[in-house]
Amino acid sequence: MTAIRPLQRYREAVVQIRVGLLGCGVVGAALVRLLSEQREVIAARTGIDLSIARIAVRSPERGRGLDVDQSVFTADADAAVAGEDIDVVVEVMGGIDPARALLGRALELGKPVVTANKELLATHGAELFAAADAAGVDLLFEAAVGGAVPLIRPLRESLVGEPVERVVGIVNGTTNYVLTQMAETGASYEQALGEAQSLGYAEADPTADVEGHDAGAKAAIIATIAYGAWVPAAAVACEGITGVTAHDMEMAARFGYVVKPVAVVERSGGAGGDLELAVRVHPAMLPARHPLASVRGSFNAVLVEGGAAGEIMLYGRGAGGRPTASAVLGDLVDAAVNRSTGSAGRIGKLGRARIRPIDELESAFYISLDVVDRPGVLAAVADVFGRHRVSIRALEQHGLGADARIVFITHRARERDVGATLAELGRLEVVNELGSVIRVMGE
Amino acid sequence: MTAIRPLQRYREAVVQIRVGLLGCGVVGAALVRLLSEQREVIAARTGIDLSIARIAVRSPERGRGLDVDQSVFTADADAAVAGEDIDVVVEVMGGIDPARALLGRALELGKPVVTANKELLATHGAELFAAADAAGVDLLFEAAVGGAVPLIRPLRESLVGEPVERVVGIVNGTTNYVLTQMAETGASYEQALGEAQSLGYAEADPTADVEGHDAGAKAAIIATIAYGAWVPAAAVACEGITGVTAHDMEMAARFGYVVKPVAVVERSGGAGGDLELAVRVHPAMLPARHPLASVRGSFNAVLVEGGAAGEIMLYGRGAGGRPTASAVLGDLVDAAVNRSTGSAGRIGKLGRARIRPIDELESAFYISLDVVDRPGVLAAVADVFGRHRVSIRALEQHGLGADARIVFITHRARERDVGATLAELGRLEVVNELGSVIRVMGE
Repeated sequence: MTAIRPLQRYREAVVQIRVGLLGCGVVGAALVRLLSEQREVIAARTGIDLSIARIAVRSPERGRGLDVDQSVFTADADAAVAGEDIDVVVEVMGGIDPARALLGRALELGKPVVTANKELLATHGAELFAAADAAGVDLLFEAAVGGAVPLIRPLRESLVGEPVERVVGIVNGTTNYVLTQMAETGASYEQALGEAQSLGYAEADPTADVEGHDAGAKAAIIATIAYGAWVPAAAVACEGITGVTAHDMEMAARFGYVVKPVAVVERSGGAGGDLELAVRVHPAMLPARHPLASVRGSFNAVLVEGGAAGEIMLYGRGAGGRPTASAVLGDLVDAAVNRSTGSAGRIGKLGRARIRPIDELESAFYISLDVVDRPGVLAAVADVFGRHRVSIRALEQHGLGADARIVFITHRARERDVGATLAELGRLEVVNELGSVIRVMGE
Repeated sequence: MTAIRPLQRYREAVVQIRVGLLGCGVVGAALVRLLSEQREVIAARTGIDLSIARIAVRSPERGRGLDVDQSVFTADADAAVAGEDIDVVVEVMGGIDPARALLGRALELGKPVVTANKELLATHGAELFAAADAAGVDLLFEAAVGGAVPLIRPLRESLVGEPVERVVGIVNGTTNYVLTQMAETGASYEQALGEAQSLGYAEADPTADVEGHDAGAKAAIIATIAYGAWVPAAAVACEGITGVTAHDMEMAARFGYVVKPVAVVERSGGAGGDLELAVRVHPAMLPARHPLASVRGSFNAVLVEGGAAGEIMLYGRGAGGRPTASAVLGDLVDAAVNRSTGSAGRIGKLGRARIRPIDELESAFYISLDVVDRPGVLAAVADVFGRHRVSIRALEQHGLGADARIVFITHRARERDVGATLAELGRLEVVNELGSVIRVMGE
C-alpha cells in the first residue's frame, strides 16, 4: 500500500446548518436517508454539518422508519420555513400551492431554497427568481430537470459564456420507456404504456407524461437557464406520444431512425437583434447514430449544441427517489456552503426572448398515409406535396388488400406548409386516412 | 410572435474584471476570440465586464490577428500575474515551469486562478490547492480534464453528497480516435496512429498519449476531486494502447466487445475504515451496450457510478482550441463573479487515501496466445490457468498453418494470479508467443 499524505487535516470549527424539509414522500424520505448516510463525509469535506430540523407533512404522527426524531415532524409548514431554527428550506412536496407561498416566504426571510418542483418553477419561476435575486440568496433546482443528471448547474455555470445554439433533451423517463419498449419488442402504445404502469414507471393517469406537459415544463426551465430569459411553460408547444404506432416504429427502423420523446430549445432568430427562441416538445425520429438514439428505457439525457464547446451530452437517471435525492443533496450542500460564507449562486439577470410560433419552424417530416391502391394515386398525392413546396426525400409504399399505405420522409419544410399539405391530402378522395406525422431531426 | 416580458432589466453598475492571460497558443487565442464574441452577453447576464489586460507570451511583438491592443502582449509573465491591473489569472501555457511558480504567486496575492494545466495539477496540485485554500480564492480547472465536458464542477458541486463508487472515463481523444479507427476500418495500430498524426489528432511524438500518461494525469485529478483525497499522477498505474492489434479488435467484435482507452478510479476498500482507491489507465474491452462503447473518434466521456445517483455520463469534445476555451471561459466567469462578491468556490478539505496496488485488483481478461497446433495443447494450457485459479469463460481457437492461435476470455481473477499464469504459459514449450492481454470490463 502506498500511503498518500493528507494535504491538511480539517481543523476549523464545523458550521451547523439546519434544514426545513417540506414534504416527505419518495424523494423526501430518500433525502433523509441519504443525508444520514453521507452526513459525516459532507462535514469532513465541506465543514458543514447538515441536520434536518423540521419536516412538514400532512400526517406528522405517521411512522416513516426514518433515522430522525419523531418530534421533527410537523403539520405546520410555515414553522419549517420561518422557524428560527431553520437555515435552509428544501421543498419536495410538489404542486403549485402551498409551495409557491412557502418558498416566496423563505426567500423573503433571506433563507436559501432548494426545490425539485418543475411545475412551480415553470409557471411562477419569474416571481421566485426575482425574490431570490432581491434577497441575494440561492434558489437551486437541479432535481427539477433530469433527476440525478447534472444539467442546471452546468448550464448556469460551466456554459454561462457559451454561445448555446440548441438544447435537445430526453427529459421524460415514462415516455422514453414506452417508446423504447415499442421499438424493441414491437409492442403497441397501449401495451407498452400498460407495462410501464405495472412497473411504476407511469402513473395511473399518465396524461402529464404522455401528452408532453411534464417535458414542456422542463423545456421551459432549460430555455430560461440556457438563454437567461424567462420562458414560461405556457410558451412551449407540446405534442404527446399517444399517436405513435407500432407501424411507425417499424418504418423508423427501416429508414435508420429511432423514435424518441424530445424537448427542443433553440435560438431561432438571426444573428443580431433580439433573442428569439423556439421551444417545443414532441416525438421525433433521430438517426440511429445520433447521441440521443442510444438513451434507452427510463434514462434521461440532454444534448447541448454550443458554438464553441461543440456537442455536450449529460446522461443519467431522470427519476426515482434516490437519484432525485442525490441532486437535491448536491444543491443543499451548495446552498449550505454559500449560506455559511454569506454568498449565493446567481441566476443572472433574466432578459427578454420572443418565442417563435411553431408554424414558422422548419423540420423534416415522416408522414404516413392510407390510400386507395390504384394507378395515379401517388401522382395525385405527390402533386399536393409539390404545390405546398414540401419536397419528398424518400417514400415506401405497401399494399394492404385493396388499399395501400405510403410512408414519406420529406426534406426540411415549414411546419405551416406541411400543415397545409396534410389538410389538402385529407380532402383527397383517394386518401382513406391520414396516419402519423412525426418530425425527423438530426440530419 | 409572443413577446415575453423581461423579468427585470439590468440596472446595477457593471463590475470590471481584468484578466492576466499566461500563454497564447491554440487555447489562449481561442479564449481571446470567444471572450470578444461573448463579452456583452456575459456582462448582461452576470454584471461582470471581462477584459484581457495582459497576455504573457515569449514573443510579444508577433502579430496574432486577435482583437486586442498590441500593447497588451508582454514577455513579462510576472506582470501578467502581479500587476495591479490584474484581477484574475488564466494559465494556458502548459508545462510545470514556470507555470507552477506563477500560479503559486497569483494565489499568494489573493488572485483567483483558472488553469487548463493537467500536468501541473496532477503533480503539484496539493501545493496549489493548499495555497488557494489558505488565500480563500478560487482555483478552477474544468478544462484540465475532458476539454469542454463539464466534469470537474459536477464532481465538486453536484455530486459532493454522492457516494461515488467508480468513475470510468475515456479522457484521451488521441487514443480513442486510434482505437475507433482500428475497430471501424480494420487498420493496424501503426496505420491508425499515422492517420491521427496527419489529421492533427496525435502529436509527432505521441508517447504521452499512447502510453497513457496524459490519461493518467487526468485520472489523478478525477480521483482527487471525486473522493476529496490528494492522488498524484505518480500513484496511477498506466498501460498504453501500443500493444493492441487488428486481430484483438476483430476478436473483441466477435465476443461482443469494443476496445476503448479507459481511466478507472474506484473505491476499493471495504465499507468503514480508511478510504482506499484504485486508480489506473489501460485499454479495456467494454460490452457493445456499455454507455462508453458508443463514444467514438476523438470524443471524451466520463461515466460516474454513484450509490444514490446511479449511472451518470458526461460526454463531449475533449480537446481543441474552442471547446477548451469554452471550459476556461465558464471557469473565468465563475471566478470573476466570486471575485466581485468576495467569495470563492472550495475544493473542500483533501483527506488521505491509500492506493491499492494494481496486482491486488480483480478483472476479467482477454488473453491471446500463439501455440503449436497438436493434440493435448489446449489441455496443457488450460491446466496452467486452473492451477492459478484463473477460470476461463470463453475461448476460440483458430489454425495458423502448423500453429494455432487461442483467444481466452476469463472470469474475474486477481491481476497477480493472471500475471503468474502468463509467466508460466510463456515457459510452456507448446506456447510460441504470448499475445495481447486486455482487461474486460462492465459485465
